[in-house]
Amino acid sequence: MTPRTYLDHNATTPLRPEARAAMLAAMDLVGNPSSVHAEGRAAKALIERSRETLAEALGATRSDIVFTSGATEAAALALAGRDLHAAEVEHEAVLAWATPDLPTDPDGRVTAADPATATLQLANSETGVLQDLPPGLAVSDITQGLGRVPYAHDWSGAGMAILSAHKFGGPKGAGALVLPRGHHLDARLKGGGQEMGRRAGTENVVAVAGLAAAARAALRDLADGVWERVAQLRDILEAALEAEDPDTILVGRRSRRLPNTSLILTPGWKGETQVMAMDLRGFAVSAGSACSSGKVRTSRVIRAMGFDDGLSGCALRVSLGPDTTEEEVLRFADAFLPARRKQRSRAA
Amino acid sequence: MTPRTYLDHNATTPLRPEARAAMLAAMDLVGNPSSVHAEGRAAKALIERSRETLAEALGATRSDIVFTSGATEAAALALAGRDLHAAEVEHEAVLAWATPDLPTDPDGRVTAADPATATLQLANSETGVLQDLPPGLAVSDITQGLGRVPYAHDWSGAGMAILSAHKFGGPKGAGALVLPRGHHLDARLKGGGQEMGRRAGTENVVAVAGLAAAARAALRDLADGVWERVAQLRDILEAALEAEDPDTILVGRRSRRLPNTSLILTPGWKGETQVMAMDLRGFAVSAGSACSSGKVRTSRVIRAMGFDDGLSGCALRVSLGPDTTEEEVLRFADAFLPARRKQRSRAA
Repeated sequence: MTPRTYLDHNATTPLRPEARAAMLAAMDLVGNPSSVHAEGRAAKALIERSRETLAEALGATRSDIVFTSGATEAAALALAGRDLHAAEVEHEAVLAWATPDLPTDPDGRVTAADPATATLQLANSETGVLQDLPPGLAVSDITQGLGRVPYAHDWSGAGMAILSAHKFGGPKGAGALVLPRGHHLDARLKGGGQEMGRRAGTENVVAVAGLAAAARAALRDLADGVWERVAQLRDILEAALEAEDPDTILVGRRSRRLPNTSLILTPGWKGETQVMAMDLRGFAVSAGSACSSGKVRTSRVIRAMGFDDGLSGCALRVSLGPDTTEEEVLRFADAFLPARRKQRSRAA
Repeated sequence: MTPRTYLDHNATTPLRPEARAAMLAAMDLVGNPSSVHAEGRAAKALIERSRETLAEALGATRSDIVFTSGATEAAALALAGRDLHAAEVEHEAVLAWATPDLPTDPDGRVTAADPATATLQLANSETGVLQDLPPGLAVSDITQGLGRVPYAHDWSGAGMAILSAHKFGGPKGAGALVLPRGHHLDARLKGGGQEMGRRAGTENVVAVAGLAAAARAALRDLADGVWERVAQLRDILEAALEAEDPDTILVGRRSRRLPNTSLILTPGWKGETQVMAMDLRGFAVSAGSACSSGKVRTSRVIRAMGFDDGLSGCALRVSLGPDTTEEEVLRFADAFLPARRKQRSRAA
């Protein structure tokens, strides 16, 4: 079997050892956090310690954090019924609830003229382009940025923030909505009154523990400069691809970007074909964001930046992780470039 | 430290070893189930194998199962906007979306004259009383019954069924909605189009794996007659309490009940005081259902059966698990009865 190299960290990340350990420990807690006996109190204490850990990692206030089953649920909780404005580059879980009429420039930067009625992502999952969050912004989806670039909620300018654990080494199926200080929120999941009445349902104790441990570890990595090293690897990769193939377009490169993400347009070579070719060679990469299995189509994000449909369908996203090595990146280039040459000779 | 005995299995259950093992294995899967590369396909395959396992355990069709973050979310998905009718004995996550006007008799049995407009639980979490699900029933919350009494969805009479993993030895934060064959459903969580467009959001791979493994193990226990033994233990407990204290009322006893649940009314002794007294003696039991931490109040379920507020506040729920032993039950009686005598002498 070909050894595998995982370079699709924007789709999801491997579980961090710290998250795994916290989840294992949480599995031994028997109680329901709503029960008043010792077993219930122990489970409740773990939830509240996890909330404190996430609050510290986020620069937010503990009582303003609502745990959810992921960013999609957090987005629905933050956005449904508010009719905010968004750019086409937002995630589908955000666009589902917003009017997509904010302009995006060719470098992927969005202008939110009236921040109080806007939702704006911190970082784009496909291009890695970072946005400056304007003061008074209603909502920000910080899912792709958290743990990779500095973020402090109470200083961010954003009222609400949406996040997901599995983008920073936590488990899939866990996320949070961060609210403005002391903000009231009507629950969408109603029933037992958990999360201070803002999100009913027995808490996912294991996932919440994993989320918090991963957030702490991710922030430690960020402070340790891990992503500066990753940005160098990304630059090595991009230089190698450009040197070989002058037609290569690196989308969003003139903007401030995540340190780990390259979105590479190779004219004339379909993104989905590239993904399959690289998969066969042992590399997990993506043609865009990983949403709704089976869908194959051109990237809405790239089109929003002014590229035509043809080019938008020729995208390959390589997203590195905190443990990605230079050897892995060079190995990827060594596999990609011959495949590209082969494709070009076939097309010629 | 006092050794602990957990007799609150209707609030939540310890994680079954089979579920734990399945969750550990799932933690090693790196991919996002929506990614098309090998890592993504492996995660997707685990989700679909889990769906098949749950379908077999439920007697349902795989494609009609929607995984959710728990029964609360499944209830919202099944019930919101439908204005169905329900009895007061339903769980709060059901009552949040239904009109509570179906009658409950003193034995806890509900009449749903028009099943097509009704939601009716399979088993009550506080009393254990079982309902006969009438043919054509719109929705059933089978959360407390699944794995404890036989249930086969396609033969049950219910159109939709709501369930939660942590009531049968799976993880908290995982559940499912079972739909009628081929039924279309509008998603409440929108975005990536997962779960065949019925529930967006990256799948909780670890929790889904745990849910399926727990369902399989729970159904094996049921087939092995484990709950017949548990019912005998429940009868031993109830006989001991009645023999000591003729004022004791065993709620719902004349009805068909879950094999593991005793709801004991002890006139003049507040349920919450009983819970605390038994907690100090090393036993985890409940004064009713474990919802929304901190709430202390009389049981809505018991009042619906015609008991007055005073008696309804004097309830203790003891709910046994598949591994509960006779020694544990006798130890509970040996701790409870002296506490009861002490309370009576104080009150006198």
